Amino acid sequence: MNHFVVKYYYGWFFIFCPHNVKINIVKICTKDKVMQVFNELSFEDGLPIPLQIKNHIKKLIVGGMLRKDEKLPSTRELSSMLDVSRNSVLKAYEELADDGYVRIEHNVGAYVLYIHVNTEENWELSWEERLSQSAHIADQLDLIKNTVRLEKKVINFRGLAPDKEIFDIEGVKRAFLNIISKEGYNVLNYGYAKGYKPLIDYLKSYMRGKGIDTEGKDIVITNGFTEGFGIVLSTICEEGDSILCENPTHNTALKIMKMHKLNVVGVDIEANGIDTFKLGEALKKNNIKAGYLVPSYHNPTGTVMPLEKRVEIYKTFKEHNVPIIEDGFSEELRYSGAHIPPIAAISGKGNGVIYIGSFSKILFPGIRVGWVLADKRLMTSLESIKKSSNIHTSFLDQAILYEYLLEGNLDKCIKKSRRIYKERYSFALECARRYIPYEEITGDGGMYIFLKLSKHIDCHRVLAECYERGVIFTPGDIFYVEGDNHNTMRLSFANVDLQDIEKGFSIIGEVVNNI
Amino acid sequence: MNHFVVKYYYGWFFIFCPHNVKINIVKICTKDKVMQVFNELSFEDGLPIPLQIKNHIKKLIVGGMLRKDEKLPSTRELSSMLDVSRNSVLKAYEELADDGYVRIEHNVGAYVLYIHVNTEENWELSWEERLSQSAHIADQLDLIKNTVRLEKKVINFRGLAPDKEIFDIEGVKRAFLNIISKEGYNVLNYGYAKGYKPLIDYLKSYMRGKGIDTEGKDIVITNGFTEGFGIVLSTICEEGDSILCENPTHNTALKIMKMHKLNVVGVDIEANGIDTFKLGEALKKNNIKAGYLVPSYHNPTGTVMPLEKRVEIYKTFKEHNVPIIEDGFSEELRYSGAHIPPIAAISGKGNGVIYIGSFSKILFPGIRVGWVLADKRLMTSLESIKKSSNIHTSFLDQAILYEYLLEGNLDKCIKKSRRIYKERYSFALECARRYIPYEEITGDGGMYIFLKLSKHIDCHRVLAECYERGVIFTPGDIFYVEGDNHNTMRLSFANVDLQDIEKGFSIIGEVVNNI
Repeated sequence: MNHFVVKYYYGWFFIFCPHNVKINIVKICTKDKVMQVFNELSFEDGLPIPLQIKNHIKKLIVGGMLRKDEKLPSTRELSSMLDVSRNSVLKAYEELADDGYVRIEHNVGAYVLYIHVNTEENWELSWEERLSQSAHIADQLDLIKNTVRLEKKVINFRGLAPDKEIFDIEGVKRAFLNIISKEGYNVLNYGYAKGYKPLIDYLKSYMRGKGIDTEGKDIVITNGFTEGFGIVLSTICEEGDSILCENPTHNTALKIMKMHKLNVVGVDIEANGIDTFKLGEALKKNNIKAGYLVPSYHNPTGTVMPLEKRVEIYKTFKEHNVPIIEDGFSEELRYSGAHIPPIAAISGKGNGVIYIGSFSKILFPGIRVGWVLADKRLMTSLESIKKSSNIHTSFLDQAILYEYLLEGNLDKCIKKSRRIYKERYSFALECARRYIPYEEITGDGGMYIFLKLSKHIDCHRVLAECYERGVIFTPGDIFYVEGDNHNTMRLSFANVDLQDIEKGFSIIGEVVNNI
Repeated sequence: MNHFVVKYYYGWFFIFCPHNVKINIVKICTKDKVMQVFNELSFEDGLPIPLQIKNHIKKLIVGGMLRKDEKLPSTRELSSMLDVSRNSVLKAYEELADDGYVRIEHNVGAYVLYIHVNTEENWELSWEERLSQSAHIADQLDLIKNTVRLEKKVINFRGLAPDKEIFDIEGVKRAFLNIISKEGYNVLNYGYAKGYKPLIDYLKSYMRGKGIDTEGKDIVITNGFTEGFGIVLSTICEEGDSILCENPTHNTALKIMKMHKLNVVGVDIEANGIDTFKLGEALKKNNIKAGYLVPSYHNPTGTVMPLEKRVEIYKTFKEHNVPIIEDGFSEELRYSGAHIPPIAAISGKGNGVIYIGSFSKILFPGIRVGWVLADKRLMTSLESIKKSSNIHTSFLDQAILYEYLLEGNLDKCIKKSRRIYKERYSFALECARRYIPYEEITGDGGMYIFLKLSKHIDCHRVLAECYERGVIFTPGDIFYVEGDNHNTMRLSFANVDLQDIEKGFSIIGEVVNNI
């Protein structure tokens, strides 16, 4: 019966073909003229039939094809036309009435209740002129970062997303099912701004495992490092305040500081971390609110600050009574040498160090969970600010992460990450030395190396040419406070296999040599 | 064998009792004296034995009980002492070496590599003096809100968390398993700042279902309404700008506006919404950046703005070229009357209305997912700001929500919510009239009613006395721009059954009568 049939009922024409194909409902407004073919209803598998009928009629009503007080066809008519049970149509009509789109008059029929509004309105605001300064800064920094849009398959030395081999999907599934059976609907309900208590307790113990004295301190769970850092800045800085950081430094942190309209004071780093003399000078000269440091696998240079240096830096900050914001970023990704305690551990019972942690680079960045460990008084305010940002971090995610950690999966993941990245790291170093004309290469492990070219050329130009040849990386200038050092680049091997590392680096080398 | 045994190995004393009870390892520093019982290792079920041994030794090392270059007992010795396989100890030692806590010298032994830092440091900063203005505002507003801390089981007319009956845990479980099998590890990896594409498409179509023209507009997914509103303000407002809102208004929105250091201009509301004459005056007099409105089930008054009023208000804003931020808050929770299109639908092809939506009150607030629908140019900046806040909203949560919606569960939940709340709503109105001496009660549905007492007494005082008698509610003054109208209260019945509604309201009535 694969032909069209046209029927006329109560002032309507219905053109239809067999069930599960397409049914066009045509409304007749004057007797002779088909006014408008106003929509198509094709039943899809999966969704209940009454819901599909309801949605379709709703669309007609909202779209103005059915106006207020118009009568819908009777349930008997529509059901026979659509070749569905009368009950389905009845249910659809009842739900439309429940939702306030139609009213049902007993033994008379269903009438449209909703008043269609004229959508011919066209009030145009020029949003470009209405953007805040922060919006402009954010737009601009995003633009600089994304000079090259990923429109084709490339060898990607830009990303820091973990290798897909590292994602333990089965473990997460197990954790989800366990936590759902333990916590039930609680994980779907509102929680506390501070976070999920068992996770907080777990992280406190984890922090003690790093040698940090957690007494008098507390933890707030955040949506990753990014939010944690933003909340800390909102809690202790005013617009125009000065903040100190390593130069170069983590570009997202730089973006956040600039968006908070802070005066960013960058202090140059040496092979083993920030220059302590220059640090002292900077702290003396400026009225610094806080210092932001990435002691392990520093982003972008990849260097690990040795213990003595950490102690020295800690003492310098202490001397000037300036708090430290420590970014615990991928601290876990060490491949050799002794484990070095974070600065927060060196500070012992003191409350001058705020530690921000995250497992994003090791476990799963898609679940945005990080944490801030800080003094209890400060925590009250961090919590209030967090609450006003987004009430709290997804409870479900926190609970899944907790259950996942509880089952001892972190160690397994770290082990897997180290195995994969360590090999890539050594090979990347080797290939960089072999193929790219460099002045300096830094990086003690982690997920990337940082390279200064021997030539004074702009890496954005190198990037543009590399992109043509299917390779991308991060130009180094975006990590510098002043946006200088154009002949530097960060090369991440987090998601590139050995073969592509060699291929990609040799292309970069060729491009550099030919400029 | 339930007695203690002391053994001496290589300069160590081990006191231990049978497996699975407690084992105290005691270190001897001088030959005759047990220097310190430094920790307890009790094997727990669930975690692998090597991991437990590793964690324990790590704790000893980090805690300074084992210092750099000290030798650990041999694997053979430790395994016999702990009554575990030698392989377990070997594995623990290897992992300690991997983590950089010990070094293993082949055929000689394992030595501590980690340098313990002195945690006697005690640098005390006075954080109280270092808090930003925003932190103080946030603290203060939280304090005002939480005059009464929930320390006992009470009849709670304060919360807006959905009733537990509404949480569809089985549906969420199904959605999770489906999306994991569809998307695999992708849901655990980084995503786009804008959000999960299929969810965005779903929501666009959902918005079209409300009569909104989505052409030239786009959606960014946020961590609930709260973040959405904050991002919108950051994108279009500078400190000191004026913003208009209904007075009273949603207290969280009020908090966010104040934390953005905006000048909040409140316009009184009448029975059916904001007073249009006063609105026009306010728009004329002040240089207003945007107007924040809650047209449906207005928080706290519970009133629904009729269509004609919406059109009138829309036209007034348009006339003054001031954009509207529309809070779609629990729009779905209507119990009677016609469905009314949001203001964003009235504005048709125009781009002057920013719509913020969320399913928190109907589905699951624990998964923090909301959205902002706005003009495409504005969207670019909203996206940049969102990115700098927390990269993106949890991908896993977005994907679960999408899958959940796709299966047609929203309608089911709305139906369930309406059934539960509608009954409570009518009963609450009835009880309020019967028990509480009021001058005015408002509320057309939703989850709460708003009440003005006939007496001029402070509801914080009423609250304090009610709390003593096991009842809490939200004093109305926190919803007012100036914090006045002390004789008002918001009574939410979202999580209170009929019996407790009657009991609670009668207690409130008695307390009011006795003041």
